[in-house]
Amino acid sequence: MARSRLDFVAGGGLVDRRSFLLAGASFLAVGGLQPSHASEVPGDARIGTEFPLWMKTPGAPDVGYGLPVAQESHVQKRAQEVVPENSGFTIWRTPIESQRGVITPNGLHFGVHHNGIPDIDPTKHELLIHGLVDRPLKFSIENLLRYPMVSRIHFLECSGNTAANALSPFARDASCQALYGEISGSEWTGIPVRLLLDEAGLKASSKWVIAEGADAGSHTRSIPISKLLDDAMLAFYQNGERLRGAQGYPMRLLLPGWEGNANVKWLHRLEVTDTPAYSKDESGLYTEFLANGDIARFSFDMDVKSVITRPSGRQRLPEVGFYEVSGLAWSGHGRVSRVEVSADEGRTWANAELPGPVLDKCLTRFTIPWRWNGKPTTLLSRATDARGVRQPTRDEWKSRYAGHSFNHYNAVQAWRINGDGTVKNVYP
Amino acid sequence: MARSRLDFVAGGGLVDRRSFLLAGASFLAVGGLQPSHASEVPGDARIGTEFPLWMKTPGAPDVGYGLPVAQESHVQKRAQEVVPENSGFTIWRTPIESQRGVITPNGLHFGVHHNGIPDIDPTKHELLIHGLVDRPLKFSIENLLRYPMVSRIHFLECSGNTAANALSPFARDASCQALYGEISGSEWTGIPVRLLLDEAGLKASSKWVIAEGADAGSHTRSIPISKLLDDAMLAFYQNGERLRGAQGYPMRLLLPGWEGNANVKWLHRLEVTDTPAYSKDESGLYTEFLANGDIARFSFDMDVKSVITRPSGRQRLPEVGFYEVSGLAWSGHGRVSRVEVSADEGRTWANAELPGPVLDKCLTRFTIPWRWNGKPTTLLSRATDARGVRQPTRDEWKSRYAGHSFNHYNAVQAWRINGDGTVKNVYP
Repeated sequence: MARSRLDFVAGGGLVDRRSFLLAGASFLAVGGLQPSHASEVPGDARIGTEFPLWMKTPGAPDVGYGLPVAQESHVQKRAQEVVPENSGFTIWRTPIESQRGVITPNGLHFGVHHNGIPDIDPTKHELLIHGLVDRPLKFSIENLLRYPMVSRIHFLECSGNTAANALSPFARDASCQALYGEISGSEWTGIPVRLLLDEAGLKASSKWVIAEGADAGSHTRSIPISKLLDDAMLAFYQNGERLRGAQGYPMRLLLPGWEGNANVKWLHRLEVTDTPAYSKDESGLYTEFLANGDIARFSFDMDVKSVITRPSGRQRLPEVGFYEVSGLAWSGHGRVSRVEVSADEGRTWANAELPGPVLDKCLTRFTIPWRWNGKPTTLLSRATDARGVRQPTRDEWKSRYAGHSFNHYNAVQAWRINGDGTVKNVYP
Repeated sequence: MARSRLDFVAGGGLVDRRSFLLAGASFLAVGGLQPSHASEVPGDARIGTEFPLWMKTPGAPDVGYGLPVAQESHVQKRAQEVVPENSGFTIWRTPIESQRGVITPNGLHFGVHHNGIPDIDPTKHELLIHGLVDRPLKFSIENLLRYPMVSRIHFLECSGNTAANALSPFARDASCQALYGEISGSEWTGIPVRLLLDEAGLKASSKWVIAEGADAGSHTRSIPISKLLDDAMLAFYQNGERLRGAQGYPMRLLLPGWEGNANVKWLHRLEVTDTPAYSKDESGLYTEFLANGDIARFSFDMDVKSVITRPSGRQRLPEVGFYEVSGLAWSGHGRVSRVEVSADEGRTWANAELPGPVLDKCLTRFTIPWRWNGKPTTLLSRATDARGVRQPTRDEWKSRYAGHSFNHYNAVQAWRINGDGTVKNVYP
């Protein structure tokens, strides 16, 4: 009945997926497993004589806009007040360890709000395109909704995601959500920005576009015009419905693969210029100091990165046996081409499966079967993108940036598995 | 500045997408357009001196689980009480004309509930696999959540979707939601059913699996074992979060491309047999009478189908000019390979663009630019899938089925554009 042969592909118990799936009754029959995974019952057993209440009485009616079940209400974004003095600067993180697949539900999308969430009347909100153009233009939302739109599934990541691992001299004991929750994935739908710039007519001297939001802080970023003519979109929809307020309703800029902060929410103005604005939002928080004394300005691209989400920080393996190691990888430079996993503290590595979809600048799921033998070890993942660039180690990353830099941290993540099954953030 | 040359690819104003996008200022400059699409403003204009309230005061805080903005609260599932005597049999339809892209938000996923939505305690709910197996097994949800999972983006459609067009002798004036709303698209994540059947060990005589839900009606369908060994999954997650109650929490069967009703929600039992159960749910509602007197039993596959969602029933074109015709196509037999659109009542057809993603058994977006000249006309779409099979006309469909049959209706949809811009459901 059960075949018991498993091919190990690296140390620490990483299993070849094909041999694992072919192993049939592997969960029950292969060494080291607890039979509690499934208990045998008599062949003529039905569900039992004690029927639960929900099988005896009609269920509740549906509603016009559904919500998660109460049993899962613990799955929430979590807020961190960065500047608590009522400034509205908060970071809301996605519980990515609770996510499967590559789509984040809109209710759980991360958000970094510098001035809270404005309540915008879409009938009064307009987009102004002016500056170095042949013809300055104003667009109502109603008009824009008639333009051709495209849909793309992309990740969005705050450049400060995983800052704690960059800054803290010791690895903080924290969850995946707390360390990595400033990333989410969505299907975005909007107008290619190029169409609108074409209508205004770019002058030959145009090089930058200053994008401004209609929030109370007039959030402002300077974007090279080449990005706007490439894959940038003026996004109106996220996962099939109009943007949520926290994501820029009625419209936002979407710059695939670029740091979240440059994807200006509540967009109301694009000013075409020949020079950046050097706004507070780009010269302050979103500029990085390097180890050699230089400053990295306009560092837009989010680099190749990965994290194992299961098992991850503050989770606990309940017993010795089989687990599916599962995580997310992404790159602002294109597709993820490979994710390697190590279960023996980095000594040996195996290629994880990328079960798909594997899309451009999109969260990419990776999985690999693993048999934990109950001994302490460390799980790591490292992604490589279509350029062939692989994630750096923490030491490599720290050697490039000044000690107090924390944006664009993309080093290899290590999770320590302790003998009691608890999982902790560690620096390898 | 503006190039004005457009290549028409079919009658009635259908435009070649490349020529359209290359036309640059086409929205403003090309004949038949109203300048109100964008109004010119002075080159030194800013947003104006009257700043709206939301630019002068900090915005609202975010919340742990976000919701749509109040301004979009009209976008809701709509209920139809099929049997109003408190039976819990209701149909909740997705507003697909409000959806862009291919993902339906979980809050708007369609649902056909035969006995309401049971409120299941996941710590007490189990899956029993028994019958013609070597080893009957019971699984707790906690155990199942440790199994390997896969994620796939698929459509789900009720076999009764678009029944009104099958049954009604005249074309009902109704919205896309009312006519086509029993379809949605999601990223589903779950355990390949094959893994669990392998653990139980199928006996040589096994041919069918009877899948039973834990709702008060014990919804029951018989599934050929070949489907369960192919791409069926035991789904726990939808668009990155645990299933909603209306979608089968804590778990459901997902049979990609097969009629929604067979994707048993609240699944608690799989009985392996050598014969179908002929349950009320499959011998009653989900069996079709054919024109030649035969009966189509176990007609699981949802056939190739498409609908233009914008413009669609009960919408109104506000003025003469350019529109992006946009719609959805799908097939339970694989990928959509082609969608043709006609803007001249079916005399000439042009290939719409499939901007992607184009995935197996997945909603597929199609778009084509269109210039409406203000005269009455009819818009139609017809999809072809990877088998090379194209949607039938209504007459072709009706000639195959008995007069009172309504399931699996997949004929070409026609939307009449009246001279005043109103859009109405018609039979071509």
